[in-house]
Amino acid sequence: MNYDMPFCEKEFMISEIADAIRKATKRSTAQLHQPVFNGNEWLYLKDCLDSSFVSSVGTYVSEFEKKIAQYTGAVHAIATVNGTAALHLALIVAGVNADEEVLVPSMTFVANANAVSYVNAKPHFIDCSEKNFGIDPILLRAHLEKISEVRNGICINKETGRIIRALVPMHVFGHPCDIIELKEIADEFQIIMIEDAAESLGSFYREKHTGTFGRMGVISFNGNKTITTGGGGVIITNDDEIAESARFLSTTAKEQHPYAYVHTKVGYNYRMPNLNAALGCAQLEELPKILRSKRKLTSEYKNAFSRVKNIQFLDDSNFPDSNFWLQTLLLNENYSQYRDAIIEGCIEAGFQVRPAWSPIHSLPMYSNLPSTKLSNTINLSKRIINLPSGMGLT
Amino acid sequence: MNYDMPFCEKEFMISEIADAIRKATKRSTAQLHQPVFNGNEWLYLKDCLDSSFVSSVGTYVSEFEKKIAQYTGAVHAIATVNGTAALHLALIVAGVNADEEVLVPSMTFVANANAVSYVNAKPHFIDCSEKNFGIDPILLRAHLEKISEVRNGICINKETGRIIRALVPMHVFGHPCDIIELKEIADEFQIIMIEDAAESLGSFYREKHTGTFGRMGVISFNGNKTITTGGGGVIITNDDEIAESARFLSTTAKEQHPYAYVHTKVGYNYRMPNLNAALGCAQLEELPKILRSKRKLTSEYKNAFSRVKNIQFLDDSNFPDSNFWLQTLLLNENYSQYRDAIIEGCIEAGFQVRPAWSPIHSLPMYSNLPSTKLSNTINLSKRIINLPSGMGLT
Repeated sequence: MNYDMPFCEKEFMISEIADAIRKATKRSTAQLHQPVFNGNEWLYLKDCLDSSFVSSVGTYVSEFEKKIAQYTGAVHAIATVNGTAALHLALIVAGVNADEEVLVPSMTFVANANAVSYVNAKPHFIDCSEKNFGIDPILLRAHLEKISEVRNGICINKETGRIIRALVPMHVFGHPCDIIELKEIADEFQIIMIEDAAESLGSFYREKHTGTFGRMGVISFNGNKTITTGGGGVIITNDDEIAESARFLSTTAKEQHPYAYVHTKVGYNYRMPNLNAALGCAQLEELPKILRSKRKLTSEYKNAFSRVKNIQFLDDSNFPDSNFWLQTLLLNENYSQYRDAIIEGCIEAGFQVRPAWSPIHSLPMYSNLPSTKLSNTINLSKRIINLPSGMGLT
Repeated sequence: MNYDMPFCEKEFMISEIADAIRKATKRSTAQLHQPVFNGNEWLYLKDCLDSSFVSSVGTYVSEFEKKIAQYTGAVHAIATVNGTAALHLALIVAGVNADEEVLVPSMTFVANANAVSYVNAKPHFIDCSEKNFGIDPILLRAHLEKISEVRNGICINKETGRIIRALVPMHVFGHPCDIIELKEIADEFQIIMIEDAAESLGSFYREKHTGTFGRMGVISFNGNKTITTGGGGVIITNDDEIAESARFLSTTAKEQHPYAYVHTKVGYNYRMPNLNAALGCAQLEELPKILRSKRKLTSEYKNAFSRVKNIQFLDDSNFPDSNFWLQTLLLNENYSQYRDAIIEGCIEAGFQVRPAWSPIHSLPMYSNLPSTKLSNTINLSKRIINLPSGMGLT
């Protein structure tokens, strides 16, 4: 077969990309992000069972929180059942009210906008940077200057009349966005910044851990994340009152008492079970090894893709301090029409690759909301392919 | 010391009750409800780790759902992160809208009313039966006849003008309430019944499992429940559409597709992780043994309390088909003022006992809502003491 003939350009790309994945991973099949349990996972789970404390009370939860705080450099960590719950709780604690607006990316997992919906607020979509897929600070500033004004310390959307209460930037695929610039804008416009660091445990920006720039940060430990607790999440913050409030609300707003059951707010059953935290404690010990392994995989992919045409592999020159949660390939502008064929071809070849999320603003329940132009989001979302990225591949 | 002297009546009761607990449990200390892991718990957790599927995809979740459906006799079971999430989802799927009313007990754990709050609806409190602590069907009917009317198949509260959409009775401490009578009233008044069977796995009413009488039932597997998954819950239902909808919303409303990320509703991250389901599968195998053990404990308590004055121990003559999740002591009318002293005395003696929940209508966030008179709830809640009830005590 002559791969150079234009009519089989698509087939050629599929074949080249699948070959590069095979070469980089040295495997014939690979899942997208399979967790690896080579450390104390079983030991701690067994210990957890032996203690009989498997639920929301137990030493592993506190230990996990302490270790997450230590690792990220945050003062407090509040462990939750998952990242969505952490984000929901963060929005409540930040004081986001019904019918207020929250500035969010469209280029992210739908949980971000869902959490805004849970508090009956409105997502307001901001386009992403071409460079790192996160909210673009230049576009954000221009947009806020145009549509908002700050009155008595509160940012008002002049077009909708609603308060813009919070900004929830996301570090997409683990790659740090321009978080310092975004924080400056949030401060200037009196908007509370909550960092969606769901994917970026182990990602830093100027030597500071992602999630620690905003009033709060949120990390996920879902099964496909850099480390996993089965299902789990955490809120990190340096603010004592916020931490106390989040912890209180996550444990059904139950007042401390030796035996009485008194609750003083509408609370949530959001505390991470001890069983899941036991897994998390063991996984955290493995984190440095996991990050090294992922960085090595980046380097393998970089080599393997170096001679593949019409694509760009995003390596450590693009993201010096990323955890490389999901390794990312970007099809060149004119090749986005091959995306689905390439994905299907790679899956057929045994490699679980995936596209970016459908942009949130294109989903039916989020289609008629305020936004900037979303041309970068639309353009990039058609060109992104995430590659098998788990630790076990090196 | 002369215990017969009236000035030390309180001390005498404390001593007698602590002695009876000691005699029944044959222990010097006991927790309220410690889980026991004597079955395949370790084996299945290890297998779950080995499979690397610890999160929301995995065979244990489906297996757990299948086994719960089989055991309860429901057609479908949808496993969730906890009972609160299950209740929240059940209300959504039942179509409870903002500013509608949901008939709930005040004599239950606060999660019941919280779930109603999550959908922006209003709890409407109904008093409980003196006999079984569940919503009293006679009081409910009289109340609905007085305050509501059915117009075009919809029940309207004439006093508030709001729709009464759902009824959420609870089987308190695992003891079945008058569920058939409640179902008849719900049907007559065109109200959807969702059973809060959080505490009543293994409890039957006329040989039918609790949770299977309503449109949906909800069970909890929190650490203190009859069986545990660490944190977990389930919706059971015989309705195919409801099951499909609940499952869809619990998995972020993601459309089935080999690789695309398309979500078509505001969804939730509510699916039980496989790790927790693995524990649940093993625990379910132990359920018959656990229920026998709890029934034996009831019998031990019955003997031990037979000569204790001024109290009533609620045994199998009161509840022939209860799982006896929490063993229950009722102080006689004139002795409720000793409740806290008795609880403190028993805790000091090494026995973790507890009062009933503070009635929900007495909590600040739920204090100004529609209700019946709540005299049984108020009266009983002052007189209930739950005793150590775990399987390990026999």
